[in-house]
Amino acid sequence: MKKLTFEPSWVDIQAAHQAIVPYIHRTAVLTNQNINKLAGCQIYFKCENFQKVGAFKIRGASCALLSLTAAERKKGVATDSSGNHAQGIALAAQKLGIKAHIVMPNNAPNIKVNAVKSYGAHIIRSGNMPKDREEKVQEIVDQTGAIYIPSYNHYNIIAGQATAAKELIEEVKTLDIVMTPIGGGGLMSGTALSTKAMLPNALIVGGEPANVDDAYQSFHAGKIIQNTTADTIADGLRTNLKDKTFGIITKYVNEIIRVSEQEIIEAMQLIWERMKIIVEPSSAVPLAALLKEKNRFKNKKVGIILSGGNVDLKNLPF
Amino acid sequence: MKKLTFEPSWVDIQAAHQAIVPYIHRTAVLTNQNINKLAGCQIYFKCENFQKVGAFKIRGASCALLSLTAAERKKGVATDSSGNHAQGIALAAQKLGIKAHIVMPNNAPNIKVNAVKSYGAHIIRSGNMPKDREEKVQEIVDQTGAIYIPSYNHYNIIAGQATAAKELIEEVKTLDIVMTPIGGGGLMSGTALSTKAMLPNALIVGGEPANVDDAYQSFHAGKIIQNTTADTIADGLRTNLKDKTFGIITKYVNEIIRVSEQEIIEAMQLIWERMKIIVEPSSAVPLAALLKEKNRFKNKKVGIILSGGNVDLKNLPF
Repeated sequence: MKKLTFEPSWVDIQAAHQAIVPYIHRTAVLTNQNINKLAGCQIYFKCENFQKVGAFKIRGASCALLSLTAAERKKGVATDSSGNHAQGIALAAQKLGIKAHIVMPNNAPNIKVNAVKSYGAHIIRSGNMPKDREEKVQEIVDQTGAIYIPSYNHYNIIAGQATAAKELIEEVKTLDIVMTPIGGGGLMSGTALSTKAMLPNALIVGGEPANVDDAYQSFHAGKIIQNTTADTIADGLRTNLKDKTFGIITKYVNEIIRVSEQEIIEAMQLIWERMKIIVEPSSAVPLAALLKEKNRFKNKKVGIILSGGNVDLKNLPF
Repeated sequence: MKKLTFEPSWVDIQAAHQAIVPYIHRTAVLTNQNINKLAGCQIYFKCENFQKVGAFKIRGASCALLSLTAAERKKGVATDSSGNHAQGIALAAQKLGIKAHIVMPNNAPNIKVNAVKSYGAHIIRSGNMPKDREEKVQEIVDQTGAIYIPSYNHYNIIAGQATAAKELIEEVKTLDIVMTPIGGGGLMSGTALSTKAMLPNALIVGGEPANVDDAYQSFHAGKIIQNTTADTIADGLRTNLKDKTFGIITKYVNEIIRVSEQEIIEAMQLIWERMKIIVEPSSAVPLAALLKEKNRFKNKKVGIILSGGNVDLKNLPF
């Protein structure tokens, strides 16, 4: 897989898919008659909660690591993440025989720290603020010469994340609307690129927690506006857009719908109870957005990417 | 679908399957590499938690109702159940335009009562003891002339439940061992019949909570021995074998493995955390049995029927 220095083309995404196939699952697409009835439309859920490491992040992580040269792989890789990206990098690095240094904040849940550890990564703890984490990862890079792999603002990561929507559309064939949650924007960017290539007339819609609506604000202001809080149950969506994801989202996304914490929890519970699958709060955000504005989705064929299923079962919101 | 008055033959099971196809989902078969590694064998999970009404019970219920004559259908049907059978009968009856009277004990969870109500059934509350429920359903039958449909001791019910293993084996082709939980024995009986017909050399193994081990006791004593308690988290398995299920299980099942409450909870948590799917405690019993005696399953290809996914999310055991 080559290193991408521009917005991934459709050819790049196809190459990314071919490169990462040995490292990912082709996840199921599920439908649910009860939810369709409630929503008044037909929804196709792409189940990245069933993906390796329990989230789509392994797609981008393996795509990024596969683009490293042999010399770079020898240096190892470093990243900072308390969540699914950490697990994605750790697993992809293990599979490729690359040393991975993962900076995890002191408040990262033990279950995630243990998962990263189980993939053989070197874990370094840091303070909890983004600044603490960034300083610590820079320190590691300086000490070890490891290559820094950011969690979303990276074109190979975006090309990897694009493969989830590619598989969804390959399976379902036609869709009127494709939806994902928006955090840092890696999944939304990749999804937008695949959708534009495969279904040029489909609408591309993001869901975002109203509490951390940097993407909505940035989209409408035409410049990056950062969140002033990280206060949402959707722990995968607390991050801000950066230049690469902001650029792609501004160009291709049709709309961003914001939802309340209560709406996220209700949509999450609906998925658990009706579909009998476990999704994390972030995954429920697009369905929450759809249900909030359901008149606009009436009788449409909608694809939703369920981004992950890593939740602490001892601490559920319902 | 004809009324079955003997142990269902393979021809009967095929006919049952053809009859009920419009009323059921063909559920997914999932595998999980982490669980396989932990178990030391290859497990194929047949996901009846994704079935309509969230459990395999719709298979037997629709098979039983389809065997009624037009005159019988006009009389309506009655059953007593606090759980998944109630939902199965209520939904199948709604689809077939049959009036359903469902006796539910006063301590039945509201979520299940509401589900049965949502399928348009007539609900009658009773005391909580089996005797209270049986008296109440007899009263309803006497008053209305409705046909009583028991929840498992009925050959059409058994033929319907047999179709889950039939689908599993059609998909996976070969299996060394097929496992289900045992409560009243309807699922185990049907599974044994399909497995014997399709894979005559496969072992047929049941899992049962040690606290309510009537099937284990009956199997070894050669006569029906009843539970003296209903004290298990596996709420679908508190019932006792009766003559029809006892007869089939004695003839075809190779072994019953008993598991503790703690083993059930751990297996359930493993399925939730690793597979990201929601199963009820009863569903976890076969995996708990396999893990308890894993040396005996080493390198085997094992089919497990995950019986259902109806749990109270507000009251989880972990």
